[in-house]
Amino acid sequence: MAAMKSMEDLFLHTLKDIYYAEKLVLRIMPKMMKQASSLELKQAFEKHHTETEKQIERLDQVFEECNSAARGIRCEAMDGILAEAKDMMEEVEDAEVRDAGLVAAAQSIEHYEISRYGTLAAWAQQLGMKNAPKLLQQTLEEEKKADRQLSELALKKINQKAAQ
Amino acid sequence: MAAMKSMEDLFLHTLKDIYYAEKLVLRIMPKMMKQASSLELKQAFEKHHTETEKQIERLDQVFEECNSAARGIRCEAMDGILAEAKDMMEEVEDAEVRDAGLVAAAQSIEHYEISRYGTLAAWAQQLGMKNAPKLLQQTLEEEKKADRQLSELALKKINQKAAQ
Repeated sequence: MAAMKSMEDLFLHTLKDIYYAEKLVLRIMPKMMKQASSLELKQAFEKHHTETEKQIERLDQVFEECNSAARGIRCEAMDGILAEAKDMMEEVEDAEVRDAGLVAAAQSIEHYEISRYGTLAAWAQQLGMKNAPKLLQQTLEEEKKADRQLSELALKKINQKAAQ
Repeated sequence: MAAMKSMEDLFLHTLKDIYYAEKLVLRIMPKMMKQASSLELKQAFEKHHTETEKQIERLDQVFEECNSAARGIRCEAMDGILAEAKDMMEEVEDAEVRDAGLVAAAQSIEHYEISRYGTLAAWAQQLGMKNAPKLLQQTLEEEKKADRQLSELALKKINQKAAQ
């Protein structure tokens, strides 16, 4: 990592971190969709996949406003979160228990994204950026909504079936 | 990882994951406190440290209800989150910019915890456990509150100073 001197440096560094993370999410989401046995869970993951594509486009726009090429840097946090998700998918034998594990994995992804977009939106605002605050806030709201919908699905259906 | 067949297995596995994670947080929090230049941020980290000790005690009680020895298993997610926090502390040269980075790091820790405690509290409830739902919910509320307080501190003071 290059030395960071200003808040602009820290902003750009964190932007690259979430860019890498989102690209990883884009790759794992179809695997999670395939592993889900609940139709509603499959649909939730499909929606997350489509949203992730749009969120990456928004990040491209923020890089543009920073006059920086859009590129990621290794995000060890998302590497770890997804390594755990993959282990869980391999190790849980029962399809309905695995669905509960998939919701948990997806929510750990969502919460990492919520923390990073929350931070980036606040920093973009503080730095007086023109379009970035709105773009980042829009993604933040999507992530929060996706997290709430997963909680509802888990409480309404997935957890009951998993515990049977 | 041992094969998981039931929701009880998945619950216990996730309990061990957050137990390991909390023990790591207990070790990094004094380092973050030392690195913070804002007195209010130091105090927030000190409070988080004290809360983490209580949260580990609550996890001990949940292990007891599961008739299982309290022990962690490697949580790659928290390993990654804290690796990023350590890199940031080393690489940001300006004390006030570093404070903004420390808030971001702490909020990524909080959000991982929020996702895991949210999941565990819902599962404990579904599994009809006696004390675990309340204990886990109590920690969940503490984590959410700590996250909100960090956002307030960042918006009110830390980010302005970092951007100067």
